[in-house]
Amino acid sequence: MSSELTKVSIVGAGLIGTSIALALRQAGIEVSMIDTEPRAQALAQDLVGSPTTSAPTQLVIFALPISAISQVIKAVYESNLNSTFMDISSVKTKIKQEVEGSGVPASKFLLSHPMAGREVGGAESARADLFVGRIWAYDPAGVQADALAHGLKVIELCGATPLAIDSAEHDQAVALTSHLPQLISSLMAKQLQQASGSTLDLAGAGLRDTTRIAASSPQLWQEIIVANAPALKPLLNQVIADLTDIAENIDDPESVRKFIEAGNKGRELIPGKHGGLARNYTYLPVVIEDKAGELARLFDACALAEVNVEDLSIEHSPEQLTGLITLALSEEDAATLYQHLITNGWRAHQPRQ
Amino acid sequence: MSSELTKVSIVGAGLIGTSIALALRQAGIEVSMIDTEPRAQALAQDLVGSPTTSAPTQLVIFALPISAISQVIKAVYESNLNSTFMDISSVKTKIKQEVEGSGVPASKFLLSHPMAGREVGGAESARADLFVGRIWAYDPAGVQADALAHGLKVIELCGATPLAIDSAEHDQAVALTSHLPQLISSLMAKQLQQASGSTLDLAGAGLRDTTRIAASSPQLWQEIIVANAPALKPLLNQVIADLTDIAENIDDPESVRKFIEAGNKGRELIPGKHGGLARNYTYLPVVIEDKAGELARLFDACALAEVNVEDLSIEHSPEQLTGLITLALSEEDAATLYQHLITNGWRAHQPRQ
Repeated sequence: MSSELTKVSIVGAGLIGTSIALALRQAGIEVSMIDTEPRAQALAQDLVGSPTTSAPTQLVIFALPISAISQVIKAVYESNLNSTFMDISSVKTKIKQEVEGSGVPASKFLLSHPMAGREVGGAESARADLFVGRIWAYDPAGVQADALAHGLKVIELCGATPLAIDSAEHDQAVALTSHLPQLISSLMAKQLQQASGSTLDLAGAGLRDTTRIAASSPQLWQEIIVANAPALKPLLNQVIADLTDIAENIDDPESVRKFIEAGNKGRELIPGKHGGLARNYTYLPVVIEDKAGELARLFDACALAEVNVEDLSIEHSPEQLTGLITLALSEEDAATLYQHLITNGWRAHQPRQ
Repeated sequence: MSSELTKVSIVGAGLIGTSIALALRQAGIEVSMIDTEPRAQALAQDLVGSPTTSAPTQLVIFALPISAISQVIKAVYESNLNSTFMDISSVKTKIKQEVEGSGVPASKFLLSHPMAGREVGGAESARADLFVGRIWAYDPAGVQADALAHGLKVIELCGATPLAIDSAEHDQAVALTSHLPQLISSLMAKQLQQASGSTLDLAGAGLRDTTRIAASSPQLWQEIIVANAPALKPLLNQVIADLTDIAENIDDPESVRKFIEAGNKGRELIPGKHGGLARNYTYLPVVIEDKAGELARLFDACALAEVNVEDLSIEHSPEQLTGLITLALSEEDAATLYQHLITNGWRAHQPRQ
């Protein structure tokens, strides 16, 4: 079997499946979309374009929720005996078990997981560039050459960065970096239901950031979390132990300081832009009028000063029509831009680390 | 005593004290800066400008950490017997107790708390507009007219929005909206210390947002949290109960779904921009080259399309030089901008709710 990929079938015409299909089509690969829901299948196939040849499928991608894979895997295998297979779901050991019980040879199935996806679903939201620059984890253990080559080709054509990782290790990792933050964010947001009177008028940016992902889909996360329960359980027990400890010592300055310091250290471990270690940006605050065109003028000024804005945040003032833009730059660029802005009449303020 | 304010003393030449001083000076009020640290006092006074009259101080503002106020309050009162007083610290009942034990008549002391301040300190970081558009809580209970008028004048001149709130209610509110999110964020970040191998390569935007404030100052937060321990304790107990409950039922789909749903509901209660209820923005994803000038070009396009960008996020791709900008706009503006961008060759993608 050739590893040159010309024909792929994708089972599941949702956001992920259709986005992969769009990326493969851009590379000239023919894609058949399959979905139990005829409307979704028709829409996705229409977006992707119909295959023009009757060549057999070389690779079947399962782009389905975990529970749905188990329902179709056997039937899909039996009608594609000469194909290789891959999946894209969030929890790998669960799918590994499914494959083992399905009759599909494990050597023909590449377990994988792109670190992308949003809180919206459906083919309508699909984008060929959904995976561009994202990590795409895969487990190469025991996978034969053509199945591995097909899967890596898909990852490459989607513009993602492949990361080989053992399935169990993957599940441990996402339990810590994705599933636990989801639970913690939901936990914090849940507490707000007890707010009364003007309590939430005192809400600031910290509360907003901490609870942003608490807006995620219960249906989606229910399945992910239950599937990864074995990896989450010990993490949750550690969190409960840490929380109980700090609750008991909440009036002890030394304990509180150590707790906040431990958070500082953990936070510093998160990699920053372009996969390197977290950079220490310099932050440049600029006050602008909150109206159309002001951001454009500001970024024109940035372009004129020939600086590279690494990140930014907008803070809106309640009941007033000004906005605070904080630009993150290198120390050198921040100094350059600050001078440029001040010289040109902007309400820029001293950059700080 | 007149409520027209012409002369103010500020004890504490840090970020908050110096920022208030700058705002008052812009309104022509003379400000004396006082700090136990001579360098800080000189720098702040230099920034603010020296008083030119020998008129007596009408208002003394304590812009100090909670612990420092108790050390100086008596002496400051005894040299300003005809003045009124206010403070700006994060926990109000603690200061109320300090005032009661200090000899300062409680009727002459306005307890207040501006909802501003950043992780940086020092007069160098001060800005006259630090409080513009922010909520500034104050407790009017038992405060005589001139002390109240002086305090409200300061709040007005700083551009903040006054919010009358009982001290105990304030402390309950910030325990929930500020101090608990700090502890929860630190708690999550603390867990990352156990990460090994390539675990943190799988970190996404959710983890970054949830742990952003975990980078805050241990020294600052130690004092705030210990001072508000009585209000935090019952909240922490509730969090432990909720967490223990979900940990025990982490493999039960129904329990997990209900937990995520409760988070959805709490999150929806947070007020959005300009003090109103959280708006449902429409999100417009645009892929740009990660180089100087691209953001400027994008915001030029926004200005040409005459749309108002309400918020935005930048997501950088690891190891690739593209960035995903997600613009938040009204549904109408998103549709307008999408058409405009597509027509002009931008890599914009379908807006979504």
